[in-house]
Amino acid sequence: MSTDSAGDRLARVALTWLAEPGNRTIWQLVQSQGAETTLKQLLKGEIANSSLLAAVRARSGIDDPRRFADLALRKGERLGARVIIPSDREWPPGADALATLELDGTNSIDRHVRPPLCLWVRGERPLNDAFERSVAVVGARAATEYGRHVTTDISFGLAEQEWTVVSGGAFGIDSAAHHGALAAGGLTVAVLACGVDRPYPLGNASLFEQIESSGLLMSEWPIGAEPLRHRFLIRNRVIAAATTGAVVVEAAARSGAVQTMGRVLALGRRAMVVPGPVTSAMSVGCHELLRRCPEARLVTTAAHVLDEVGTIGEYISEPARAAQHARDSLDEESALVLEAMPLLGAIDPDQLAARAGLGLRTVLRRLSLLEMRGLVIRLDDGIALSPAARTNSDRRGMPPQLPGLTPPTGGG
Amino acid sequence: MSTDSAGDRLARVALTWLAEPGNRTIWQLVQSQGAETTLKQLLKGEIANSSLLAAVRARSGIDDPRRFADLALRKGERLGARVIIPSDREWPPGADALATLELDGTNSIDRHVRPPLCLWVRGERPLNDAFERSVAVVGARAATEYGRHVTTDISFGLAEQEWTVVSGGAFGIDSAAHHGALAAGGLTVAVLACGVDRPYPLGNASLFEQIESSGLLMSEWPIGAEPLRHRFLIRNRVIAAATTGAVVVEAAARSGAVQTMGRVLALGRRAMVVPGPVTSAMSVGCHELLRRCPEARLVTTAAHVLDEVGTIGEYISEPARAAQHARDSLDEESALVLEAMPLLGAIDPDQLAARAGLGLRTVLRRLSLLEMRGLVIRLDDGIALSPAARTNSDRRGMPPQLPGLTPPTGGG
Repeated sequence: MSTDSAGDRLARVALTWLAEPGNRTIWQLVQSQGAETTLKQLLKGEIANSSLLAAVRARSGIDDPRRFADLALRKGERLGARVIIPSDREWPPGADALATLELDGTNSIDRHVRPPLCLWVRGERPLNDAFERSVAVVGARAATEYGRHVTTDISFGLAEQEWTVVSGGAFGIDSAAHHGALAAGGLTVAVLACGVDRPYPLGNASLFEQIESSGLLMSEWPIGAEPLRHRFLIRNRVIAAATTGAVVVEAAARSGAVQTMGRVLALGRRAMVVPGPVTSAMSVGCHELLRRCPEARLVTTAAHVLDEVGTIGEYISEPARAAQHARDSLDEESALVLEAMPLLGAIDPDQLAARAGLGLRTVLRRLSLLEMRGLVIRLDDGIALSPAARTNSDRRGMPPQLPGLTPPTGGG
Repeated sequence: MSTDSAGDRLARVALTWLAEPGNRTIWQLVQSQGAETTLKQLLKGEIANSSLLAAVRARSGIDDPRRFADLALRKGERLGARVIIPSDREWPPGADALATLELDGTNSIDRHVRPPLCLWVRGERPLNDAFERSVAVVGARAATEYGRHVTTDISFGLAEQEWTVVSGGAFGIDSAAHHGALAAGGLTVAVLACGVDRPYPLGNASLFEQIESSGLLMSEWPIGAEPLRHRFLIRNRVIAAATTGAVVVEAAARSGAVQTMGRVLALGRRAMVVPGPVTSAMSVGCHELLRRCPEARLVTTAAHVLDEVGTIGEYISEPARAAQHARDSLDEESALVLEAMPLLGAIDPDQLAARAGLGLRTVLRRLSLLEMRGLVIRLDDGIALSPAARTNSDRRGMPPQLPGLTPPTGGG
C-alpha cells in the first residue's frame, strides 16, 4: 500500500467511482500493489477482467477519474465530510472481516463482498470509536406501529448502555432505531447507500441532521452518488461486518433484512430476531429466519440483545415477567418521572425535575421515552399525562381478565 | 395383572379415588402384583409408604372404596361414560410412555408422573383411534383475540388433515382449539382434570356437549371428581404423553402451558411454539420457551405443525409468502365460497352452494372458517359479507403503503 496518504486517498475515491464498492478484482489488486498503481493499470486497460474494463471505460468516458476524485474531496471538505482509508486510525477494523467472506455468488450482488476501499463520513465522532460497541438494528421500511414501537424501545435501551445503534436511515424500522438512540442521548450511525451530502430518503432530512450533529453519517459512495437499487444490498454487507451483531425487527419474506442476516451469520456476528404476530406479513421474514437458522437468536428486549453482544456477565437480563405493560416495563428513573407528573394539567420540565428528585437532563431524556410510549404528551404550556396514561393509572399491572373467569385452578 | 377384567377395572377406579393419578408407589405396586391385590394391601395398611397410607385412610374413612367405585361405574354407564384400562384394546399406547419419565421432582406435582391406572371416556370414538394422529394445542386461559384467532386457524388446518386436536377444555386457547377442530368437522378430545360428568368450566358447557357428540371427553378422575388446582398439572402430563406433539399458542411466563412443554420435551414429543407480539404478556412464556429450549420449534401455521408431526414427506409446507391477509391465506374452497357471496345483502347456504359450485356440506364448513375470520356474518335471513370484508374487497393483497414512500431501491 502506498505510503503517500493523499495519493492513496485520491486513488481509492477514484476507484470507488469507477467500479462499485466491494468489487473483488479491484480489492485484490489494491491489496497486492496499492490503489494508485491499480488505478493507473485500470485506466491503461492493463487488467484481465474484460467486463470490469468495459465498466471502467464507460465511467472514465464521462469524466477523468482523478479530476472527479479531487473535486469530490474538495467538495466534501466544504460540507464537513471526510474520507477514511485503511491506513487511518479511524478505520473500523470490523469492515476488514469482509475480506474473508465467501458467499455462494448465485446473484450478482454476492460478487461485491470485499471490504470498502474508503469510507465517507460526516460527524465528529471517530469512526472506530463509534463502531467499537455497536449493534445494527434493521428491518422493513413498511414497518407496522408494533415494529416501530419495539425498535424504539430496544434502541433506546442499547444507547442507554452506551452501545452505538447502527442502521440504514430508511423509513420504518431504520428510522425508529435512529430515533430511539437519539432519544436516549446515545450514539447512532446511519450507513447510507448514496453520497453523505444527499442522504436518502428526503423525508428523513431532519433525522439525518440530528444524526450528523451527535452521531455519524457514513457511506462508501462518493459525494453526489445516487441511491441506486443495487447499492442497498452492497451497503448491507458493511452494516453486517462493522457491528458486533444485528437485530432484525420486522422483515417481509425474502427481504433485504433477511439477506443482511445471511451476511451477519456468514461473518460470525450475532444474528438476533424479534418475533411478531404470525398474522403480520411484516414478521414473516423474522419467523422464517428463526425457523431456518438455528444460530439466529430470538430477542424481545434490549437486555436480551446485550446478553448476546456484551462480554459474558456484563449484562444479566431479568427473567421473563408475568406481565409487561407500558408502565410496568419502565426503568426506575422513567417511573419516577411518571409518578411525579400531575394527574391533571401540564408541568414544566424544571418543576418536574424538582418533584421527581432527578436532574433536568435525566428528566428530559426520560420524557422522550415516555412520550414515545404514549404516556406523556407535549403541550404549549409544558408536559402532561396522555389521556391513555391517565385512564390507566388506576389499573396498572392488572392482568387481563375475562368476565366470569374465576381461576381456582392451575390449568392452562 | 389380574385376568378378571371387571375386578381389575373396579380396583383401578378405587385406587384412583384413594390416591391421585400418576402416583408412583401405587403404579409400581399395580405393575408388580395387579390392581386388586394392591387395593387389598392398601386397605389393610400393608405398605411401607406412611404418607400414602395416611391419605388412603383419610379417603377410606369417608366411604368404602369398592362401594364408591361400583357406584361410580354404574353411574357412568347411565351417563354414557366408560372406563378404559390398559388391557382394553382402546388403551392409548402413548400414555404408557409416562412410565419411563423421570423429572427432577422439585415440586410435589412431579412425583405424579406415572401412567394413568384407568381413563374415563365419554363419546363414541375408540380412544386409541382418536390419539393415533393427534396434536395437543394448548395455551393461556386469558388469551388475546390474536391468540384465539391463530389457534382456531391452526386447529382447523390440523383437523382438515384428519389429525385429532387434543386440549384441556379451558377458556381461551383451549376453547379456540376445540372450536377450530369442530368447525372443520374434525375430531377433538378434551382431557379434563375432573369427572367427565361435570366438565369444567361451566361456561364451556355447550362446547363440551359438541365435543362429546363428535369427539371425546376424557379424564383420569372418576365421575363426580372436582377440578382441584393441582389436578390440572397432573392432567397435563397425559396430554403430553398421549399426543405426537404439542403446540403452545399463548402462555404467560411460568404458566401451566410452559410446564407442559417441559413434559413434552422430556417425553421426546415434538414441542412447537407460536410466537406473538413481544409487547404481549400472553406471549412472554412462548418466547422464553423458544429462547431456552433449542428443541422447541417455532411454528406459525398448521402446515408448519404438520411438517413436525407428519411422517417425512407427508406434508410439504409452502415457503413463506410476502403477504398474508385474511383473504389471501384462504384455501381454494373457502376463496370460492367468499367469491360467490353477494356484495350486498344475505344469501342462503343452498343458493351459495349453487353459486360456488360446491356441495352444501363443504359450503357450511367453509362458512364456519370465514365467520371465524370475520369475513362473513350470520344474519336472520342468511349469510352476508362482513362490513370489513366488503370494504377490503377492492384492495385485497395490497401491501401496506406509507404515504410518500416511493421505493426505487432494494434497501432495508
